[in-house]
Amino acid sequence: MSPAQTLALAETLTPPLADGDMLAAIDLGSNSYHMVVARYTMGQLRIVDRLRETVRMGEGLDGKGGLRADVRQRALECLSRFGQRIRDIPPTRVRALATNAVRRLSAPHAFLAPAEAALGHAIEVVSGREEARLIYLGVAHAQPPKPGHRRLVIDIGGGSTEFIIGEGFETIERESLQVGCISSTQRFFPNGRLSRRRWRDALTEIEAEFQQFANAYRALGWHEVLGASGTNKAIGELCAAMKLTKGAVLAEALPPLRDRLLQASHIDQIDLPGLSDDRRPIIAGGLLVLEAAFNSLGLGRMAVSKAAMREGVLYDMLGRGGDDDPREFSIRNIMQRYGIDTGQALRVERTAVQLFDQVARDWRLSGDDLLMLAWAARLHELGLTIAHSGYHLHGAYVIEHSDIAGFSRQEQQFLAAMVRSHRRKIPRSAFDALPDRLLAAARRLSLLLRVSVLLHRGHEKQTMPRLEAVAAGDTLTLVLDREWLESRPLLRADLDGEEGDLHALGLRLQVSTAG
Amino acid sequence: MSPAQTLALAETLTPPLADGDMLAAIDLGSNSYHMVVARYTMGQLRIVDRLRETVRMGEGLDGKGGLRADVRQRALECLSRFGQRIRDIPPTRVRALATNAVRRLSAPHAFLAPAEAALGHAIEVVSGREEARLIYLGVAHAQPPKPGHRRLVIDIGGGSTEFIIGEGFETIERESLQVGCISSTQRFFPNGRLSRRRWRDALTEIEAEFQQFANAYRALGWHEVLGASGTNKAIGELCAAMKLTKGAVLAEALPPLRDRLLQASHIDQIDLPGLSDDRRPIIAGGLLVLEAAFNSLGLGRMAVSKAAMREGVLYDMLGRGGDDDPREFSIRNIMQRYGIDTGQALRVERTAVQLFDQVARDWRLSGDDLLMLAWAARLHELGLTIAHSGYHLHGAYVIEHSDIAGFSRQEQQFLAAMVRSHRRKIPRSAFDALPDRLLAAARRLSLLLRVSVLLHRGHEKQTMPRLEAVAAGDTLTLVLDREWLESRPLLRADLDGEEGDLHALGLRLQVSTAG
Repeated sequence: MSPAQTLALAETLTPPLADGDMLAAIDLGSNSYHMVVARYTMGQLRIVDRLRETVRMGEGLDGKGGLRADVRQRALECLSRFGQRIRDIPPTRVRALATNAVRRLSAPHAFLAPAEAALGHAIEVVSGREEARLIYLGVAHAQPPKPGHRRLVIDIGGGSTEFIIGEGFETIERESLQVGCISSTQRFFPNGRLSRRRWRDALTEIEAEFQQFANAYRALGWHEVLGASGTNKAIGELCAAMKLTKGAVLAEALPPLRDRLLQASHIDQIDLPGLSDDRRPIIAGGLLVLEAAFNSLGLGRMAVSKAAMREGVLYDMLGRGGDDDPREFSIRNIMQRYGIDTGQALRVERTAVQLFDQVARDWRLSGDDLLMLAWAARLHELGLTIAHSGYHLHGAYVIEHSDIAGFSRQEQQFLAAMVRSHRRKIPRSAFDALPDRLLAAARRLSLLLRVSVLLHRGHEKQTMPRLEAVAAGDTLTLVLDREWLESRPLLRADLDGEEGDLHALGLRLQVSTAG
Repeated sequence: MSPAQTLALAETLTPPLADGDMLAAIDLGSNSYHMVVARYTMGQLRIVDRLRETVRMGEGLDGKGGLRADVRQRALECLSRFGQRIRDIPPTRVRALATNAVRRLSAPHAFLAPAEAALGHAIEVVSGREEARLIYLGVAHAQPPKPGHRRLVIDIGGGSTEFIIGEGFETIERESLQVGCISSTQRFFPNGRLSRRRWRDALTEIEAEFQQFANAYRALGWHEVLGASGTNKAIGELCAAMKLTKGAVLAEALPPLRDRLLQASHIDQIDLPGLSDDRRPIIAGGLLVLEAAFNSLGLGRMAVSKAAMREGVLYDMLGRGGDDDPREFSIRNIMQRYGIDTGQALRVERTAVQLFDQVARDWRLSGDDLLMLAWAARLHELGLTIAHSGYHLHGAYVIEHSDIAGFSRQEQQFLAAMVRSHRRKIPRSAFDALPDRLLAAARRLSLLLRVSVLLHRGHEKQTMPRLEAVAAGDTLTLVLDREWLESRPLLRADLDGEEGDLHALGLRLQVSTAG
């Protein structure tokens, strides 16, 4: 789907996966941090290692966007242990993702910067709906789907719960609700006190939340229900231990389980056969969320899946950078939905890729940088659907706030920053949302996009003469065909006017002519 | 188009135009302020009075969003004179519109509040593209269009220039560029000094601006060109006085006109036959913009039209509030473009209108308030196209920043504020963009919309039992059918939860049951 030129160049910069390569996925969840390491062999992934630590980051959230110091410390120590394990895996084969617990921090950078240092690798934040997509991908690969069989997958995390309807390996609906086993325990049973009345009131509130999507989900329907996550696994085991059901959770098993749990008047006293000490502090919230889900969606039976987001991340990495990159599909969908002028977008992309090719080495740009530049080129006119005036701002707004399948938050912010700065004055704040590690590349790519857009400002369909570009330090020198430029005084004026607008990029543009 | 119930109720609140009614339109332009008064008779408008004062507000702009005190004073005095003339016309039959000069103020309220007091009437700000639509409407009514005949209309204002392509009474393309006769004179001939070199450089810069849309316009094409505005009229008169052309401006007349103008080395010395003293200070910028327009669009001949935006505003008022309200078409277009769930939107509208009907008298709400509420109901889910999370914010963003034909800026901000506050916590800043005169209505309508959305949160298709609503002071009391509410504990919980979210509205919601 990606123009062949872009893809071919990206592959020279980041070689595709080869037999025997190792991959790792790390999941910074609200309850546990997980790592899974796999070997790519004969076109398949084989899991070779799993690590799990109960960091319980969600417990350390103070509800005002802060993180308790001891929990933060526990998290960093865990990450430095994980970091040892990935030291020998090339960085392009590792993805570390943070979810709800980090999304709820008021200053995520303040945690992510030391966390990345401890892990020795970038950590990306994903939205709830992207998390949902990755969970489904993990479950679908663990339990291969029957053709035409629609599935509902429920993942109860520490701080959020994901509901996904999918068929085959594709999702149809994805929802992520701010209701998880840790957050519900804290919210509805403060100080650990349990009662039937609290349980009933809590159910009403959670079901009110679930009502948002429940009708639409029930109208769509499914053939089977699968529960992922530690909470669902634990409840499945409790059902088996209490001989209520075996290998699955049935609707009729939930009331006796809840009644048994509520025999305790405090969380510390919960006594359920087969409950681990680790799970006790958060089982009340977990069971509550599951009961609300069964009620809201009218469920009868839910099988338990052992797969989770981290396996989904591994399978997602197989597609990234190639022709089946899920991000490619998303970009195409956005172009269609917002009626982007494809011809102009691809002309700008072609020129941007041509420039990139000539400066990539000197500016140390990667294959993924190239993809980001190409996608920003395809989306740069998106905001025109809203209004011509300030369309670069509108495009950046939509890209930053949309749920775009396949992208992490940082990747969306990266794209948004490029679209934001492709024309007009660039405020210094344009790159504020980006982590420091992406700043240099973001500024350089923004300049390449900006110049490419200028060169195509007339929306002319003719091909341009060959461009030469040289990057040296902070200066990009553009060599244009003399005759071609002389016949375009407006372009000349535009290029001369650029100097004043580039301060925020910390870069300079020089234009000379040849030929 | 509007649901019949909404329209019927609106007409009881604001009766439609009757024979003999007077209407007035006021235009606060960058160069002059204009007023035109008309009588509606036998289904036609007959102009009965015209006023014009050369306020030259654009000259008072300091480029940093401020307005010189003497110019501000001149503007307020003019408005109080205009105010005398409209004293006997019902407020619903008067529209006063401000354009580019007010758009460029950094604190428009600081000017608009005293300006509205001086005029004794609300002043609305319209976007450049809405200005373009109204100009076209005025020109089309003055020179009735031939069927199938496409027209290009050019209006060179003090601070902006509008380019419109239209057919019949509808526009096809509308552009507004930040280049006008006053602003160009100031920008390219500072201190009034003229030279061939400056002229040439200025042309290059303006043509670079026009290049943005010129190719698309030329591809679309037109059968005739009409120039509106004082600048075009003056240039037409100069051409005639110099015997270059008669009743129109031809491409070949522009170079001799410019050469004659540039015999002066200072603006004060410009000597052109038939040039009024009033026009001399701004004719250089005006001719410059027109020459750039002829070059960019490859024009040969432009006829001169005497009509302008103010006449368009009068014709627009004829449609407002009725079945042909241009705003109705715009709302329908947005609903289509953003794929809004029409069923849900209309269910919410129906309930909102039912509530409105019962409280309109006590809360002193008008027919236009009703339309705003109905439109906000139709658009409240717009933001779902971007993302579910925070969709009320995304919807408000799109409504505030889009060019929506038929709406003034304040009307769009009004709609955006309602959509912004239809769910979740309402920040005190939600209504900051609105002028004080709209605040009370905006808050009350927001509460009505909010309650209506809550009542339909389950997206159920069944009709609701009859609702009763009573407004007393700052309290809205809702009387719901007891049985119906008791079977909906989630709605009950939602309604109870409202109390905490309504602080910013300064209103209270009480729920009781009956039946």
